[in-house]
Amino acid sequence: MSGGVRKSVQDLHPYVPGEQPNAADVLKLNTNENPYPPSPRVFEAIGECGPDSLRKYPHPTAAPLCAAIAKLHGLSVEQVLVGNGSDELLALCTRAFLENDGRIGYMEPSYSLYPILSDIADVRKIDFPLEADFTWKVPNTLDVDFFFLTRPNAPTSLSLPLEDVRELCRRVAGVVLVDEAYADFADDDAVALLKEFDNLLISRTFSKSYSLAGVRLGYVLGAPALVAALYKIKDSYNTDVFAQRIGKAAVEDQAWMKSSTTAIRGTRTAVTRELAARGYTVRPSQANFVFARPPQGDAERIFMGLRDAKVFIRYFPGPLTGAYLRITIGTDDEMTRFFKVLDSLSA
Amino acid sequence: MSGGVRKSVQDLHPYVPGEQPNAADVLKLNTNENPYPPSPRVFEAIGECGPDSLRKYPHPTAAPLCAAIAKLHGLSVEQVLVGNGSDELLALCTRAFLENDGRIGYMEPSYSLYPILSDIADVRKIDFPLEADFTWKVPNTLDVDFFFLTRPNAPTSLSLPLEDVRELCRRVAGVVLVDEAYADFADDDAVALLKEFDNLLISRTFSKSYSLAGVRLGYVLGAPALVAALYKIKDSYNTDVFAQRIGKAAVEDQAWMKSSTTAIRGTRTAVTRELAARGYTVRPSQANFVFARPPQGDAERIFMGLRDAKVFIRYFPGPLTGAYLRITIGTDDEMTRFFKVLDSLSA
Repeated sequence: MSGGVRKSVQDLHPYVPGEQPNAADVLKLNTNENPYPPSPRVFEAIGECGPDSLRKYPHPTAAPLCAAIAKLHGLSVEQVLVGNGSDELLALCTRAFLENDGRIGYMEPSYSLYPILSDIADVRKIDFPLEADFTWKVPNTLDVDFFFLTRPNAPTSLSLPLEDVRELCRRVAGVVLVDEAYADFADDDAVALLKEFDNLLISRTFSKSYSLAGVRLGYVLGAPALVAALYKIKDSYNTDVFAQRIGKAAVEDQAWMKSSTTAIRGTRTAVTRELAARGYTVRPSQANFVFARPPQGDAERIFMGLRDAKVFIRYFPGPLTGAYLRITIGTDDEMTRFFKVLDSLSA
Repeated sequence: MSGGVRKSVQDLHPYVPGEQPNAADVLKLNTNENPYPPSPRVFEAIGECGPDSLRKYPHPTAAPLCAAIAKLHGLSVEQVLVGNGSDELLALCTRAFLENDGRIGYMEPSYSLYPILSDIADVRKIDFPLEADFTWKVPNTLDVDFFFLTRPNAPTSLSLPLEDVRELCRRVAGVVLVDEAYADFADDDAVALLKEFDNLLISRTFSKSYSLAGVRLGYVLGAPALVAALYKIKDSYNTDVFAQRIGKAAVEDQAWMKSSTTAIRGTRTAVTRELAARGYTVRPSQANFVFARPPQGDAERIFMGLRDAKVFIRYFPGPLTGAYLRITIGTDDEMTRFFKVLDSLSA
């Protein structure tokens, strides 16, 4: 202890979110936000939040929203917990499913929050490196109590085959959480595996496919015994009245969400083709971003050049990722602007 | 470990929030909500939350809101952190300021969440009992790393004298958090003490005086070194766009908040007098509720009788609290209904 602050917190390097520039002329392709607006029903739900719903506490467990989510996935309501963004739920897991001497595992590279959540929980972290092409072989030995699997993975955009997810669930003695933040942009998801494994949790977010990053809402699905443990330790009222009502409106408008994700998948195909035409190596993306390697090995220079022209993408230094750029898929018009600036850099 | 769930979580008895009945004819005097609506500026702020503010991530640290709060209290912005309700901030403290073998202290009775937060953090808890009249002498020996002091206290409604808060800060080697959820209804607060002590934090909520329980917003004030530790471990985007904009609008309309708290203090005086006229022992409240002992020692019976008549108040079984009722101060009309039902029970 020094000055009252826990030693592990003193030593902690906190998570750094992608930049949120305020200037209206910035093209934001850096935090995997959805370029399309949320469902119009969302705004009806907001309009229904009158003085009484603000001055009173919200539903402690967001039961109506959980019921809508359970129905969507064909699960029971005891298998659903909503949270203040999926980040809250990932953090809750590190407190529910590990002892003080526990070990958290994750692929590397993957969502850079996992090692930080491990450090915040002050438990051991073990990274399992991807191959050079960003594929992953499930290790024979996984001596961890909890495993974070991002599927599709970020920033690589690849999805581990479902059969490998099964194998992972078999090999991990503890709990496996499949972080499906990007699943609505992918060809499949792992929800059906919940019937096969009682050590499996799946997390989802409203930030990407539902265009609701500003609202902070996510959920976790899983075996009732695991979900019940999370309920026991969550904050009493962890989602507010807006998130609860907006989330329900959004879930109940699947047509809107699907039209948005279909458009983004279409643009993703076009962007992949355009980048390939410029000599980029592009991973076959299952998410709302692409991970692409410039032909001249000058990823950081291009990142900075784009930035100077007010086009923000994401660059992750490091041995495996440093040759690549992560580019969020915007609208077709936004991607036209992106390519115009990109081409001007090599002109 | 059993089935992947941490032992301390398996053993945990979670917090049980006050009931949130849906029926429109229920008189809710059970969770210390404010009976008056929030500032009209709040609804202007909601109206400004368009599609772009929903689809994008919110400000990670809610800087504009923190600046407004810092200005209100005459502090620097580094001394302010906002959270998803003050509950989130209290929980963050248990993870920032204690080692695994740490000890959390609090008065007993006090906010019943503290022992549960201690159990969730899996650290030792030490309660320091109040006297029979609910006053408290600061113990000479306080061998704790973190102390939760609710001021005014709940459910007792009493405020520890400021000189005793000073003494507490001197005697605790670790960090003292003064939970000022009800401070806007009190004659004074501890903010000025932040200049004297670098081991002091103060938490506030928008749930009571600002009539915004549904929005989940609270903040903590304190020495930059302590606040910085909380920033390091909070979720990246812990408050949503609604909370950030609504909170700023509410903070900037102090006149509205004060007119609300002044009305409640006036009703509190009248309710205290009315209860005393019926033989109740009423503690001199500094909060938006009163803690009152019925003359016949039948608190639980009255609680149940009121409940049958759809008037919800709060009853806390236990040796010190079981003789008392906690009654939230509503509007004058609501309290007239309360007394009508109360009198019918003894008729």
